[in-house]
Amino acid sequence: MNAPEIATPAMRPYLPVTAKFISGEDSPRAFLERCLASLDASEPAIGAFVTLNLAAARLAADGSTKRWRAGKPLCAIDGMPIGIKDIIETIDMPTQNGSPLFEGFRSERDAASVAALREAGAVVVGKTVTTEFAATEPRGTRNPWDTARTPGGSSSGSAAAVAVGAISVGLGTQVLGSILRPASFCGCFGFKPTVGAINRGGSYDGLSQSVHGPLAASLPEAWQVAYEIAQRAGGDPGFPGLYGPATPPAPTQPRKLAVLETDGWAVATAAARRALEGAVAKLKSAGIGIVGRHDDEHVAAVETAIHGGRKLSVAINAWESRWPINTYRTRDAGKLSKAMLDRGCQAEAMTLEDYRRHIADRDRRRAVYHTLGKEFDACITLSAPGAAPIGLGSTGDPIFAVPGSMLGVPALSLPVLDDGGLPLGLQLLGFAHRDASLFATAGSVLAVV
Amino acid sequence: MNAPEIATPAMRPYLPVTAKFISGEDSPRAFLERCLASLDASEPAIGAFVTLNLAAARLAADGSTKRWRAGKPLCAIDGMPIGIKDIIETIDMPTQNGSPLFEGFRSERDAASVAALREAGAVVVGKTVTTEFAATEPRGTRNPWDTARTPGGSSSGSAAAVAVGAISVGLGTQVLGSILRPASFCGCFGFKPTVGAINRGGSYDGLSQSVHGPLAASLPEAWQVAYEIAQRAGGDPGFPGLYGPATPPAPTQPRKLAVLETDGWAVATAAARRALEGAVAKLKSAGIGIVGRHDDEHVAAVETAIHGGRKLSVAINAWESRWPINTYRTRDAGKLSKAMLDRGCQAEAMTLEDYRRHIADRDRRRAVYHTLGKEFDACITLSAPGAAPIGLGSTGDPIFAVPGSMLGVPALSLPVLDDGGLPLGLQLLGFAHRDASLFATAGSVLAVV
Repeated sequence: MNAPEIATPAMRPYLPVTAKFISGEDSPRAFLERCLASLDASEPAIGAFVTLNLAAARLAADGSTKRWRAGKPLCAIDGMPIGIKDIIETIDMPTQNGSPLFEGFRSERDAASVAALREAGAVVVGKTVTTEFAATEPRGTRNPWDTARTPGGSSSGSAAAVAVGAISVGLGTQVLGSILRPASFCGCFGFKPTVGAINRGGSYDGLSQSVHGPLAASLPEAWQVAYEIAQRAGGDPGFPGLYGPATPPAPTQPRKLAVLETDGWAVATAAARRALEGAVAKLKSAGIGIVGRHDDEHVAAVETAIHGGRKLSVAINAWESRWPINTYRTRDAGKLSKAMLDRGCQAEAMTLEDYRRHIADRDRRRAVYHTLGKEFDACITLSAPGAAPIGLGSTGDPIFAVPGSMLGVPALSLPVLDDGGLPLGLQLLGFAHRDASLFATAGSVLAVV
Repeated sequence: MNAPEIATPAMRPYLPVTAKFISGEDSPRAFLERCLASLDASEPAIGAFVTLNLAAARLAADGSTKRWRAGKPLCAIDGMPIGIKDIIETIDMPTQNGSPLFEGFRSERDAASVAALREAGAVVVGKTVTTEFAATEPRGTRNPWDTARTPGGSSSGSAAAVAVGAISVGLGTQVLGSILRPASFCGCFGFKPTVGAINRGGSYDGLSQSVHGPLAASLPEAWQVAYEIAQRAGGDPGFPGLYGPATPPAPTQPRKLAVLETDGWAVATAAARRALEGAVAKLKSAGIGIVGRHDDEHVAAVETAIHGGRKLSVAINAWESRWPINTYRTRDAGKLSKAMLDRGCQAEAMTLEDYRRHIADRDRRRAVYHTLGKEFDACITLSAPGAAPIGLGSTGDPIFAVPGSMLGVPALSLPVLDDGGLPLGLQLLGFAHRDASLFATAGSVLAVV
């Protein structure tokens, strides 16, 4: 393990500080400057950002400073420094999709989520590094805890920038493991909402499992940012959007949790397994009922239902990627990675009938999982098989994040475990549209683990 | 009524001609030239196209000619001349959305449906006129049957171009009445598939009720074009896509039809009402069971369930348009129509809670309608309250097309009625994912009416 180049990656939560903004003891502008100092210190080693717009960020922070001083912030996240994954459009910065095909591309508009953030007064600092089209090909961001390691992907830059305190929240997206995995590897909070909960207009993640979500410096700001976006932009057209209260859900002890091994257990490190077992033991000691596949037939049925979820999800993603990949190939196939070309080939080998079988299979698996919600408040498992692996050639294994993506349910990664001194996430998996309840459970878990 | 400037609008079906392509007695190129002769004759008076790419069309037709001569067409629609509504992206032509904001805009890619058409060998002739962002503001296309009248909208150009035989099929979209209404007014076939049945990637109709569909010179080509697109592009991500056979469904006498008055009955002309009653009488004479709201409580329940559908749909569309309209306003509000600005204001006055109530209301109405499918094969009604109204300032009343849009079910307009010597559509409304069955019923209805 390399010596970390960022002495102590330290997150910078925003919400606790806002109490001092009205008196003028602190201000959004001063908060931003502290973020930018962290950014200056870390960015050369980490490479979390593709594009910065510091002049606009400072202007926005000044506006927010005035609103807080006047006692009239637009909402709780007014002034919060935020980074935007570079597959999501911004009017003032290019959207380059982690691809040379989109070098310098400007859409001349804000995506729905970004427009909502600005309406809420948030300060957009810059565009964060994404893998190629939010898929597998890394684009050089390093893990702040050990720069020889991957930060995870595809929301690589958002996670790394939150971890070093350059922003309080980074907007990400997840279709397979792209929020939970980098949150786990970088030691920040990651929230993948129920599918459809946040409007994806103006973003390049049109796949049916994909959803926007925050990588955040604290659990409350993960909630607040998702809430403020959904209130203004809604969910995807036809979807009811994120349900839940206007303030972070209060911690509530769950009735019962199911501990899931998932397909990831087989590849989890011994330390990661011990870390999960340790967390489960603490929760049990706190009086929370936890059962696993060997204790409960419904949990066993869910383990069966999520088995093979990666292969299924990859096939679904491939068919749904057929059209966009073909448009990229038409432009310049030479600018696509081999992984992207391979995905295109997988799509070409599929038929609409294949796809129908796959989404019917997914529906069946979702129905099995859904029934668990009658008895359980959430499921608990790891967010990743272990600490971030060494090397920047891969973003690591998404295996533990796959169930939440395939099932379309909310998932949280809490940065409370470790594997050899490096961050490891504890994952909580909820039930569709019960995102708020998952936060309430998570608050309670955080207090114990 | 003005004297029609197009002596006799005459559609030009493609499928019946292809039998002569293998022998060389006829060819896709020759077919295209006949289309272009009609286009030359009609276009100055009608204005159905925004952009033409005749060089590319001729090249594509020549390629198709060779394939047919070799006995190896790519599929049944290889060589078919098609127009693309100008909200759907094309790599070789601008996509201007009926808006000065998009003047000359090039996306540098084909939309999913257009890419599929080209893969199927279809000949893309040009981009057809749409109202502003496929909403209400007309863009000057005239009705071929009487140039003082509207062709309907928003798929105005696609319908008019099919009516005059300039193309065999025009791709359209419908969120409220945009396929059925122009089909009715221009006297061509219109098919609005089940919501989600055709991939909308690369098109500017992201609303939850919107769907792509063909305006066509015949019932079989409406099916074939939709089928060939869906096979290659699939449906919207997460949707199973259009179900049905590889060749147009054979006419099948329905067990039972429900005749619906809908909210449109109150504004239908006397001649339109008589026309529908006449069609119903013919179908009854042919032994088809038809019952209405006064004969059957389930039909009465459906009439109640679709009552007020326009107001509900307009509210749903408004909320879902909030983000795109705001991006347009940010660019240049002065280039938006008053109608578009008003829609933006309606959106701003709504909350996510309002929207949730509306889509829950829509779900409830859909469920009532769905139960009718157990007993009935389809519903029958008018496609419009009467012939195309005089004047180009409005695209006419979408009232009869609203139920199909709100319910998300397949709908067909058959050009078999008339109102004072002008075209009027007979509408058949089917049930979700039973599009093929609706075509089978329509074939049987066509043989009788």
